[in-house]
Amino acid sequence: MTRVRATILAAPRPDELQVREDHVISFDDAGMITAVEPAEAAGGPVDLELPGTTVLLPGLIDLHVHAPQWPQLGTGLDLPLDRWLFDYTFPLEARFGDLGFAERVWESLLPGLLSRGTTTAVYYASTHEPATLALAEACVRHGQRAFVGRVAMDHPQGTPHFYRDRDASEAVAASARSIDAIEALGSPLVRPIVTPRFVPACTDALLEGLGELADATGALVQTHCSESDWEHQYVLDRYGVTDAVALERFGLARPHSVLAHAGHLADDDTDRLASIGAGIAHCPLSNLYFGNAVFPVRRALSRGLRVGLGSDIAGGSEAGLLPQCAHAVNVSRALTDGVDARLGPGRRGVDGSAIDILTAFWLATVGGAEVLGIPAGRIDPGHAFDALAIDIGPESGVEVWPEVDDWSRIFEKVVRGAAPTNITHVWVAGRRVGPWRS
Amino acid sequence: MTRVRATILAAPRPDELQVREDHVISFDDAGMITAVEPAEAAGGPVDLELPGTTVLLPGLIDLHVHAPQWPQLGTGLDLPLDRWLFDYTFPLEARFGDLGFAERVWESLLPGLLSRGTTTAVYYASTHEPATLALAEACVRHGQRAFVGRVAMDHPQGTPHFYRDRDASEAVAASARSIDAIEALGSPLVRPIVTPRFVPACTDALLEGLGELADATGALVQTHCSESDWEHQYVLDRYGVTDAVALERFGLARPHSVLAHAGHLADDDTDRLASIGAGIAHCPLSNLYFGNAVFPVRRALSRGLRVGLGSDIAGGSEAGLLPQCAHAVNVSRALTDGVDARLGPGRRGVDGSAIDILTAFWLATVGGAEVLGIPAGRIDPGHAFDALAIDIGPESGVEVWPEVDDWSRIFEKVVRGAAPTNITHVWVAGRRVGPWRS
Repeated sequence: MTRVRATILAAPRPDELQVREDHVISFDDAGMITAVEPAEAAGGPVDLELPGTTVLLPGLIDLHVHAPQWPQLGTGLDLPLDRWLFDYTFPLEARFGDLGFAERVWESLLPGLLSRGTTTAVYYASTHEPATLALAEACVRHGQRAFVGRVAMDHPQGTPHFYRDRDASEAVAASARSIDAIEALGSPLVRPIVTPRFVPACTDALLEGLGELADATGALVQTHCSESDWEHQYVLDRYGVTDAVALERFGLARPHSVLAHAGHLADDDTDRLASIGAGIAHCPLSNLYFGNAVFPVRRALSRGLRVGLGSDIAGGSEAGLLPQCAHAVNVSRALTDGVDARLGPGRRGVDGSAIDILTAFWLATVGGAEVLGIPAGRIDPGHAFDALAIDIGPESGVEVWPEVDDWSRIFEKVVRGAAPTNITHVWVAGRRVGPWRS
Repeated sequence: MTRVRATILAAPRPDELQVREDHVISFDDAGMITAVEPAEAAGGPVDLELPGTTVLLPGLIDLHVHAPQWPQLGTGLDLPLDRWLFDYTFPLEARFGDLGFAERVWESLLPGLLSRGTTTAVYYASTHEPATLALAEACVRHGQRAFVGRVAMDHPQGTPHFYRDRDASEAVAASARSIDAIEALGSPLVRPIVTPRFVPACTDALLEGLGELADATGALVQTHCSESDWEHQYVLDRYGVTDAVALERFGLARPHSVLAHAGHLADDDTDRLASIGAGIAHCPLSNLYFGNAVFPVRRALSRGLRVGLGSDIAGGSEAGLLPQCAHAVNVSRALTDGVDARLGPGRRGVDGSAIDILTAFWLATVGGAEVLGIPAGRIDPGHAFDALAIDIGPESGVEVWPEVDDWSRIFEKVVRGAAPTNITHVWVAGRRVGPWRS
């Protein structure tokens, strides 16, 4: 049993800040929390006492990371989605046939995300089995909770000749082998995930085969869904139905499927996915760059759809989920008020769409855990001790002013204002996993 | 004469990246640059050679900072502008009657902004003369180039009883004394600026008196302009004309006036302000929180209006202009594409509104300098050596990958991805002004 003493800030519900000052968290050898008690009641020695100028938050769950796009993070955002893929992204991902290059990128990506507090990540790897397995191995080695998916894509029009699976049956076989290889690592933290890139990159035979693979293996599924005007219309043109309906038909919209973006989801799609138990990876920055519209997160939550947050590295330009929490609030404000002043106030936005920072943080923790069905996202008994500690002391750059600040304001300052360097400790399943600074 | 050797990245025009690898910058005792030459051609010893993994950028010019709102940065963004002012902001600003509190805030604000590379700031102080003078003194002491304005506000409906000038003539007199006191500091870096808060907070007599004060003293003017639906409509209701027209009538829209926000500016307002030579402080984040719409920066530039960037601390939730550059691109993407997917693709946004990171950085440097009419914003002879150095080395967190990165991508990664802690040196007028880390 390990015991950590800290002040815990969390959002157990979208509109609720939970403050537990000076508590002791106890977790067992598997990293599962067994008790969270006020220090006074808990008594006894602790293994680690965080400084009083530190707050402990539940670990951040990033539902959408394109691992091989790490080297282009923050760049190449000037093109629409279809051209961005062919001009920048597919050529970069194709490089991951070089295992040495892949391993160098993973050795940068994993510490980069862990040091920013991303305790769980859902990864698109590349089409390459060795690079995909190496990513899973890197997650095991660095101790990050992860879902790692070999990307399947075989469509002769939707993919370039230099970066695609040979055909549907070879793609399904490769994905099956990749699942087995990741399972064979024997890690309770790192799981395979079935990953059809998105409908435009996949033939019907591939989508069907991957649906069957998910059925046969019980692995979760991730893909993109109603991401942009172009992609949404493409699926309508190809099938006469939306992404949500098409994915359900192929057996890919399943309980805990992770569907990225969904900015163009209609209400009946929302209801359909909610009743299935699938979830959305809301990627707020990416909504602005490639989505052509903002995912209405408040509306989706009100209809019972599971939603978490994604950085969409590198369709979103920033790593780590604290900045994405702020972006989620920002884009929700844009959706509420609209953007074009030449339209009247009542005609430019969607009233009631705004979320606050608590809801955004809930998405990044509890929301993400519910999408994936994992016991994380909360610092409570029965959940894994996935957590990050943040320094808010006088030298931290997080400006706390007793004259105006209560815990609610301090929480907002932490989420909006903490720099990566303010994060002093990150744990996954009770193991310290960073940050390791020289 | 001082000589610094470095690699310089700058945006001399909105669409142009200028890369000067391994150059020597020479500046005189007044901090004015006399030469910028390739190191090989320059020859001779240098006073400072920046490491090869460092880039030098022109200093950032923040056109809109509410200094007394520093303690609430990143919080209290849940209310519309009028309620936000009365519920959160006026009570906080009223505290600056306490000079001790004011001095403590300034001692946090100045290092906070300088360490983030803000070499020039245009400040709203509070209504209090001592706090305003203390802010100007702090700027002199810390070496920041600044325009410091005592806030004038006397409208019995537009301000609270506990935080307003007694009447217009007392307000004008206080502002005149404040200008004299700041002038008396004798600093070439720190200038007074006439600061009517905004039309709703000022009586006609005050606006008129401050226009005359600007005329008499030659001091620049700053105020808010067409900020939100409410504020824009308020001015239309009060005068039957827009902010731009009203401000011109009161003698407040002048050459180099700094007009904040302007999201609701009509094209004829834009043309009017352009012909006057006034400029806009574009505050992208604040557009989302309080503006109800996004300022169309590309449109304004194309019509010849001067535009720079502002953080709008604390109506914007982040300090420093590098994040605001990214936000400026983000909100311009929202304006281009729109946000509400239920409207058709052609009906939800304003095509052609997107700017790229180069344009955003130009706004933060050259654009801001042109708004103010100051010899800064460029690392070129005849300009002050206002600059910041950023570490992009292997441990910096700025991910440079030779496989995919050229200077254009590195520049974008720096602007989008550098954390405050990556900034290693900041100079104003040739004097090192930070960051001072313990």
